[in-house]
Amino acid sequence: MHITVALIGFGNVGRALARLLMRKTDVLRQDYNLTFTVTGIATNSRGCAIDPGGIHLETALKLVEAGDGLRSLHRGDPVIETLDFIERCPASLILESTWLNPHTGQPAADYARAALRAGRHVVTANKGPVAFAYRELCELARQNGRGFFFESTVMDGAPVLGLGREALLATDIHRIHGILNSTTNFVLTQIEEGSSLEQAVQQAQQMGLAEADPANDLEGWDAAVKIVVLANVLMGADLRPADVDRTGITGLAVDDIRAAVASGERYKLLCEAVREGETVRACVRPVRLPLSDPLSQIRGTSSAVTFETDTLSHLTLIEGDPDPETTAYGMLVDMINITRERYL
Amino acid sequence: MHITVALIGFGNVGRALARLLMRKTDVLRQDYNLTFTVTGIATNSRGCAIDPGGIHLETALKLVEAGDGLRSLHRGDPVIETLDFIERCPASLILESTWLNPHTGQPAADYARAALRAGRHVVTANKGPVAFAYRELCELARQNGRGFFFESTVMDGAPVLGLGREALLATDIHRIHGILNSTTNFVLTQIEEGSSLEQAVQQAQQMGLAEADPANDLEGWDAAVKIVVLANVLMGADLRPADVDRTGITGLAVDDIRAAVASGERYKLLCEAVREGETVRACVRPVRLPLSDPLSQIRGTSSAVTFETDTLSHLTLIEGDPDPETTAYGMLVDMINITRERYL
Repeated sequence: MHITVALIGFGNVGRALARLLMRKTDVLRQDYNLTFTVTGIATNSRGCAIDPGGIHLETALKLVEAGDGLRSLHRGDPVIETLDFIERCPASLILESTWLNPHTGQPAADYARAALRAGRHVVTANKGPVAFAYRELCELARQNGRGFFFESTVMDGAPVLGLGREALLATDIHRIHGILNSTTNFVLTQIEEGSSLEQAVQQAQQMGLAEADPANDLEGWDAAVKIVVLANVLMGADLRPADVDRTGITGLAVDDIRAAVASGERYKLLCEAVREGETVRACVRPVRLPLSDPLSQIRGTSSAVTFETDTLSHLTLIEGDPDPETTAYGMLVDMINITRERYL
Repeated sequence: MHITVALIGFGNVGRALARLLMRKTDVLRQDYNLTFTVTGIATNSRGCAIDPGGIHLETALKLVEAGDGLRSLHRGDPVIETLDFIERCPASLILESTWLNPHTGQPAADYARAALRAGRHVVTANKGPVAFAYRELCELARQNGRGFFFESTVMDGAPVLGLGREALLATDIHRIHGILNSTTNFVLTQIEEGSSLEQAVQQAQQMGLAEADPANDLEGWDAAVKIVVLANVLMGADLRPADVDRTGITGLAVDDIRAAVASGERYKLLCEAVREGETVRACVRPVRLPLSDPLSQIRGTSSAVTFETDTLSHLTLIEGDPDPETTAYGMLVDMINITRERYL
C-alpha cells in the first residue's frame, strides 16, 4: 500500500515526525507493506510547500533548521494559507501538529474539519479538535469513510487512546485519574529538590517543556483539556475544558510542597473524571498522595493514568521520560493504524 | 454478526467467563453488533456437552456448582474426550482455559492445534500453546485464515499483548521487565508484613492463587513461561521456558526480605527479556528494588510490565487487584477483536 501524506506544523513535533518517517521507512515497508510520499508541508512562519512528486524531507529539515523558508520546494501557484493548503495538497492523510489555543481549540479544529470534508484521513497531536469538537469530527469522519486518530494528544506517544479503542472493550469505565501535564509535574519535582517556582519554570522553558507564557500549564488548562479528551473519548462524556473544576499549582506554597515530602507524601496535579449517574464530572487539582500510591512515583516529565472499570479493577499506564520524538511516534502509530483501517 | 462458541475448561476462569458472557450479552449486541450461541462446554471432570441449539449457561453453571456433570445437557453421540469434542462441536470460536503443565505446554497446545486445523478461531488463557508452539500455531492460524489470540496468558486481562499488536508498532523493543507471577508477589508482600513463608503460601492457596503444589510458582516456572510468551510474541524470540535463567524465591531468607524493607528496598521476583545482538536472553530472579522504582510499589496480587523501545523510553502497564473475572475479561476482549478481524 502506498499513501500520500501532508504535514501541517513543522515545529519540534513536526520535525521529529519527519525524522522518524525517514528512520522508519524500511520498517514500514517490511513490516506493514506501507510506502509513503510526503506531498506537502505547511508551517506557520516558514511558508508552505506542495509537490505532488514528493518533498525531500531531509532538504526540508535543513532549510527550516537553517532559518530558511520552504517556498523553494513548492511547485504550482502560491499557497495563501493553511486552509488553502489543506484543500489543494494531494494527500490522503494529514499529520497535524500545530500550536493550540486551549480556550478555543483553534485553528486545529478548523483544519481537521476541512481535511475530513476534503476526504482526507486526519492524525492530530493537537488536543483542540478533540476537546472542542470530538463528536462532530467523529461524525464527519464516519460520513466520509475516513479515519480521525489522535493518540499523541494525551501522554505523548503512550497508547492511552489505542488502549480504549482496542482493549477496553465492553467495559464500563467509571473513573479515570492521572498526572497528565509534564510541566507542572517537572516543576513540583524541582521544587521538592530545592528549586524556587521561578527557577523551576525557567528550567522547564529552557527544556522546551513550558511555553514563554507558562500560565496554560501552571493554571491547569493543559491538564483540563487532556482530562476532557479522555472523558469524551473513553467515557462517552461531552465536556468542554471550561466545564472542568480546575485549580492549578500557582496557589501552592513552596514550603507546603516540601512539608508534604517530609511527611511521606507528594503533591501532584491530579486530573480526574468520574461517572456520577448519567453525567461525568471532571476536575484538576493539586493533591497530596502517599508514597505508596504509584502515581506519587511519577517524577519529572513522566506521566501516568489509571482506569477503573467494571471488569478491570485498576489498570495504570505510565510513560517515562518522553521527548518530542515520543509524540511523533504516537502519530506514526496512528498513521499505520489508519492504513490498517482500524477506524472502521 | 452471530458467532457460535465452545468453552474448553470450566474451572474458575471458564465459569467466570460464562458469567461475564451472560452479563455482557446486551453490551455486545448494542456496542459491537455481536450475538453468540454457546454450542458446547468441555470439562476435565464434569464431562462434556454439545448442543447445536445452544447451551443455557446458567443451567450449566448451576449443575457444575452443585457438583453434577454436564452430560444431561448433551445432544447426540457421547463425546469420548476433548479432541473429539473439538472436532465435533459446531463452533466457529473456541475459548480455552484448561490446566497447564508448565514443562510441556500440554494438553492445551494440542487443543489449539486441533481447533485451528478444524478451521476454528482460538482464544486461550493458557500460556502453554504460546510458550511452546507460538510460531507453529501462528502459521497454522494464518494458513486457515483464523485468529489465535491469548491476551489472558500474561497479566490476566491487562492488555499487554493487545498493546503489542495495536500500539507498539514499527518499534524495536530492546528490553521487557516486570513482575508477572501473582503468587510469589503476594507471598513476598505477606512476608514483609510478618508472615512466615508457609503461612503466606497457605493463604495464597486458600485464596485460589497458588496450586496445591506451589512449586510451579515459587520456583519461578510460571514467571519463566510468561516472560517467554512476551519475548516470543513481542521481541521475535523463539525461546522455551527451559531456556530461561531461572531462580525462584525459595532460596530467600525471611530475614533478608525484611532487611531489604528496613533499608528502603523490596525484593521482587523480576522477569526480564533483553535483546543482545541477534538473540534475546531471558531470566527470572529475585531482585532488590529501591522504593523509587515503580515496580517496587506492586503489592500483593498486582502485576506490572515495563517496555523499553527505540521510540518509547519507558512504558509501564500495571494491573491492580485482579480476580478470575479479570482473566475472563481478557478472553472476552479477544473474542470481540477476533470478530472484528483484528488478526488479519
